[in-house]
Amino acid sequence: MSAEIICVGTELLLGDILNRNAQFLAKELAALGIPHFYQSVVGDNVARLQEVIATAAKRANILIFTGGLGPTPDDLTVETIADYFQTPLTERQEIIADIQAKFASRGRVMSASNRKQALLPEGSAILPNPTGTAPGIIWQPQENLTILTFPGVPREMHRMWQDTAIPFLRSIGYGRDILHSESLHFWNIAESTLAEKVSHLLDLQNPTVAPYAGEGEVRLRICARAKNIEEAKELIVPIAAEIKNIVGLDYYGSDDDNLASIVGKMLKNRGQTISIAESCTGGNIGSFLTSIPGSSDYFWGGIVAYDNSVKIRCLDIDPTILATEGAVSMAVAEGMALGVQSKLGTDWAISITGIAGPDGGTQTKPVGLVYIGIAKDDRTAKAFKYLCPAYRDREYIRTVATKHSLDLLRRELMNSQKN
Amino acid sequence: MSAEIICVGTELLLGDILNRNAQFLAKELAALGIPHFYQSVVGDNVARLQEVIATAAKRANILIFTGGLGPTPDDLTVETIADYFQTPLTERQEIIADIQAKFASRGRVMSASNRKQALLPEGSAILPNPTGTAPGIIWQPQENLTILTFPGVPREMHRMWQDTAIPFLRSIGYGRDILHSESLHFWNIAESTLAEKVSHLLDLQNPTVAPYAGEGEVRLRICARAKNIEEAKELIVPIAAEIKNIVGLDYYGSDDDNLASIVGKMLKNRGQTISIAESCTGGNIGSFLTSIPGSSDYFWGGIVAYDNSVKIRCLDIDPTILATEGAVSMAVAEGMALGVQSKLGTDWAISITGIAGPDGGTQTKPVGLVYIGIAKDDRTAKAFKYLCPAYRDREYIRTVATKHSLDLLRRELMNSQKN
Repeated sequence: MSAEIICVGTELLLGDILNRNAQFLAKELAALGIPHFYQSVVGDNVARLQEVIATAAKRANILIFTGGLGPTPDDLTVETIADYFQTPLTERQEIIADIQAKFASRGRVMSASNRKQALLPEGSAILPNPTGTAPGIIWQPQENLTILTFPGVPREMHRMWQDTAIPFLRSIGYGRDILHSESLHFWNIAESTLAEKVSHLLDLQNPTVAPYAGEGEVRLRICARAKNIEEAKELIVPIAAEIKNIVGLDYYGSDDDNLASIVGKMLKNRGQTISIAESCTGGNIGSFLTSIPGSSDYFWGGIVAYDNSVKIRCLDIDPTILATEGAVSMAVAEGMALGVQSKLGTDWAISITGIAGPDGGTQTKPVGLVYIGIAKDDRTAKAFKYLCPAYRDREYIRTVATKHSLDLLRRELMNSQKN
Repeated sequence: MSAEIICVGTELLLGDILNRNAQFLAKELAALGIPHFYQSVVGDNVARLQEVIATAAKRANILIFTGGLGPTPDDLTVETIADYFQTPLTERQEIIADIQAKFASRGRVMSASNRKQALLPEGSAILPNPTGTAPGIIWQPQENLTILTFPGVPREMHRMWQDTAIPFLRSIGYGRDILHSESLHFWNIAESTLAEKVSHLLDLQNPTVAPYAGEGEVRLRICARAKNIEEAKELIVPIAAEIKNIVGLDYYGSDDDNLASIVGKMLKNRGQTISIAESCTGGNIGSFLTSIPGSSDYFWGGIVAYDNSVKIRCLDIDPTILATEGAVSMAVAEGMALGVQSKLGTDWAISITGIAGPDGGTQTKPVGLVYIGIAKDDRTAKAFKYLCPAYRDREYIRTVATKHSLDLLRRELMNSQKN
């Protein structure tokens, strides 16, 4: 028994998009313990898609398709599958009703072309798409062969996989041995340094420990195979504890935690509030903090002071200091943090001022130079210098500066006793 | 004549890595005008790799392999290809010498296992790897079939592609025709509606026109095949003009444009400035506007007024209006836009107040309800209601509300004459 992933879309053949869907599905199949030996990519073309189906149907028992479920004429996955298995399409009224309701909720009327999305092979079950208009199918067109289809939009596909595909695959006997993993997240430590510190754990067989890096962050994934989640957790817990013990403060959270959710939890537990004053990040810290549901409990708001006039007018920065020290300086970072803290009346405040590039750098203040201010609940402020390597681009500098500012706040919160 | 990409590696089947090599090669093949209809991924397994070779050799003339060229026992791409075409391997002394030199330059001695990398099929040419130890091959094992192999390491593969594969493919007649494309971006129109409006263009052969959708946006990609970029552009220009003419204001930009860069260009051309007042988006509009290099020419900053106290204190919102109309209302959206415009002294301002969820919705003000205010350069303000469908999540609502606010600004800028 094995599965095969078939991704349909000319945009994949043109290299317009990266095939993240194949990676997602591959990981999920591994987690369910379903063997998977081949992946195919084919364009929006009936004859070639039929050839891929013919090849895959001979060597696999579960065919998982992504892409080509939309309303336009080049979306032909479902009709081609039906045609290959010589099965007529039937119109499903419940899908028409669902699409109409989704259009109506946006004050729109369903287009005639969307009717096509309601045509599914006779005998197939609907694989519901709660967040989009294109439903998938679960279909057994012949003995020992099951077909699942998903739209190419990753967000919709993930939800359908979680809600319906996993329970279905478990119901037919997969996923008895499960893979369960915990991710540990670190900030301010290089992947190679981290790997050296825990090198004795990287050869373990069960659980396995593997490092990943991205956008300034490093993660360790601890992955256990067991009969059930409880047994898997028992394998993971001591390893996670050992790693946290070795690494110390550079570990900041696990799994779905991010730096915004972690400082949010800490502030909420203390019953304290925070505001932000942003220059080069333009609102990025505020946006990140408020990406957490319930952030209104501790986040009050802030000032985006991109232009110096706003730093003076809204944050009471002394124009003389701007002239002597420059907008990108320790003094201005401290002043911005204290300014917004006092204007908004919050317990804590973070500020960022820096040079995100690509222009605006000088010999003494290069692109990538960032000052971060933290105003503490004792009404004092500290500023920190952060220098991003010169080869990084504007978005990387802004993203990493944003995360670093929250990490600095996290460390200050840990150091301070609530009074 | 067509090419097929075959990526070899169990790590791809486990989902441990994203298949960036397939995207790189797909783009390169498109740029050279080499048709490419299939991609396959297979693990480090002799029998399955042979099956993939057999299928691909029947339907393509150029097989491009990545992965499995290393020195370890699970690297078996070259020997499996040779075996499939019943050709013996011969040891190449120049490769042994090259690997030894590369080891010596790092003060190391070549491992015995590296000798394996010098074994290439009789009759094949070496595809040199200047930055690694694993060479590729260029080989014609039978008439009308050419095989190229590359290591899986992207950096090594890219260099080998540039240095040797492109000149080789040009020498055998490819790269005379090129593919060139232009993307048109739309806002506030459903993919199905757009596709119906331009349905007569979706069947064109050269250029082709295809729709794509994602995060509230719709795109049309016009792709032409021609002798050179100039000729391709000549094919694209009239189609692009026709589409823009049919669709009108819902078209907002092309290729690398986004809504932030488009309103930025308009403001810069007018010599005008903008500020933002954000509630539920928490700084997202500011972050998006400042993602554009040079945005300091027109973006001054703003107020993130997440908590009502900040709306009152920093934006002069009347507490009575907050009490009677609620924070999520037309009146508050207008007041926020006028408030930040006057505080910061900018020509224009945008505001957003809404319910991003998952909690906080009511019968009359559901999750997804957003009011957007635009303060214009004549000091008047307009507010717009935007309702995101209930099935969308917090991040989608915030992202789409942000983009929609910039689209509303764009339309207001187009309607207004600069005075």
